[in-house]
Amino acid sequence: MTPVMTAEELNAFMSEVFKQVADEFNVDHVGAGEVTMRLLTSDKHLRPGGTISGPSMFGLADVAAYIVTLSVIGPRALAVTTNCSIDFMRKPAANVPLIAKARLLKLGKQLSVTDVLLFSEGMEEPVARASLTYALPPPHVN
Amino acid sequence: MTPVMTAEELNAFMSEVFKQVADEFNVDHVGAGEVTMRLLTSDKHLRPGGTISGPSMFGLADVAAYIVTLSVIGPRALAVTTNCSIDFMRKPAANVPLIAKARLLKLGKQLSVTDVLLFSEGMEEPVARASLTYALPPPHVN
Amino acid sequence: MTPVMTAEELNAFMSEVFKQVADEFNVDHVGAGEVTMRLLTSDKHLRPGGTISGPSMFGLADVAAYIVTLSVIGPRALAVTTNCSIDFMRKPAANVPLIAKARLLKLGKQLSVTDVLLFSEGMEEPVARASLTYALPPPHVN
Amino acid sequence: MTPVMTAEELNAFMSEVFKQVADEFNVDHVGAGEVTMRLLTSDKHLRPGGTISGPSMFGLADVAAYIVTLSVIGPRALAVTTNCSIDFMRKPAANVPLIAKARLLKLGKQLSVTDVLLFSEGMEEPVARASLTYALPPPHVN
Repeated sequence: MTPVMTAEELNAFMSEVFKQVADEFNVDHVGAGEVTMRLLTSDKHLRPGGTISGPSMFGLADVAAYIVTLSVIGPRALAVTTNCSIDFMRKPAANVPLIAKARLLKLGKQLSVTDVLLFSEGMEEPVARASLTYALPPPHVN
Repeated sequence: MTPVMTAEELNAFMSEVFKQVADEFNVDHVGAGEVTMRLLTSDKHLRPGGTISGPSMFGLADVAAYIVTLSVIGPRALAVTTNCSIDFMRKPAANVPLIAKARLLKLGKQLSVTDVLLFSEGMEEPVARASLTYALPPPHVN
Repeated sequence: MTPVMTAEELNAFMSEVFKQVADEFNVDHVGAGEVTMRLLTSDKHLRPGGTISGPSMFGLADVAAYIVTLSVIGPRALAVTTNCSIDFMRKPAANVPLIAKARLLKLGKQLSVTDVLLFSEGMEEPVARASLTYALPPPHVN
Repeated sequence: MTPVMTAEELNAFMSEVFKQVADEFNVDHVGAGEVTMRLLTSDKHLRPGGTISGPSMFGLADVAAYIVTLSVIGPRALAVTTNCSIDFMRKPAANVPLIAKARLLKLGKQLSVTDVLLFSEGMEEPVARASLTYALPPPHVN
């Protein structure tokens, strides 16, 4: 699972194909089948008290699973999420960035499976865990 | 599972406790352990081509599970989602409202379990299915 | 989702390709994208008090999802489960057969998605719900 | 998440409260919120070709989640699984023991959440991943 794209390349790819949300996310680090990302929180992600909404947590987990898949297979815009299971375990800390640590568990011909842990920056215990399946387009599609 | 709140009361409750998102959702119909809701889509829910984003679909399923639970137990602001499993099965139709049909499968002392099917209005086959668990606050809390 | 196999044909197919477990299950009814099956419980499925074990409930849901998929695509031995999410909601009744009602929600080229409700026979409220994804072999494989 | 039970104590507890399945499992190692277990495979767990059945993989993940919870809270017979999400990623190797590595992600008052990876012994890539939620009995119950 050697990465074929750098954090810079992944951020550039997001800006290109996901114009509408690319400014919400940043890829911090890329390893072997592993990516660390963050949600650049703004008002639209928050609930009263500064806590982060469920859809925003889901959205970060979803993007992180996609990005860690791309980091190994290279840029392919057509992958789609087919399944997500997510456990919300703790309330995110108020006014602290949300970090995703994604780990690619399987990369098959048709499917990838990724585990994601979400953390409030600076805290040790995860606020949520998610597993996501992506259906991969055939390599010749794009 | 006789409902104790009407669609009007559920919409009013959302406006009160979820100010920041209440204008995104509408409760259309309340039955016995069943609720039909819709996402009032605006630009922020869309992706290029008019399709609805994954976090928006998750958000509608999550709210529908909460609302169907409230319809039976009455207004309690503190319930929290603990788990969601969601399958994305078809691309939502462009520029068509997204409808959720939620069915309460279990109402225990500590947990509720809800099944949700999401549809593009006017289409027969669901675009997604989700199951959600809510942790319920003790009755005396609010 | 018109069925192409009858209950008798599905039972015969199970006997042929799943010799080791076919005597544990029976297909009771086949509808349009829907199957009702039962677990023929014996000592190996039970826990003290006559309740049915978690793996036995999982096993019935898994087989029901497979059988409802076959009922529409015809006999293909190679489909494999890729994901299951299951909620255990109530304790199964002691010494009562376990019934699965499976509904095919999606039949794609590569994946099928099925919803399953499990019931203790004669009771109205489900003991468990599950959703399962099967990866389908290409049609020419067998 | 300091363990309060050793592997020996956990094995003894299984023998006592799960007589009917205790001889199928062994706790190999207990760490801080982590347990390594194995399925002692016999004919009933196998499918033709020596591969391990889905219900057997589910069963090992389920027991591992329970045992890692007990390792931290001490012996309590009444915890019940409320939810499991499992991804089957690779075919288990024939005639090789199945190993579970379970990690307790959350221990709340009412719920525990555990991540489990399943491996064919001696192989690096997991054959399955699962996350499980247990509902915990009140401490005074047993």
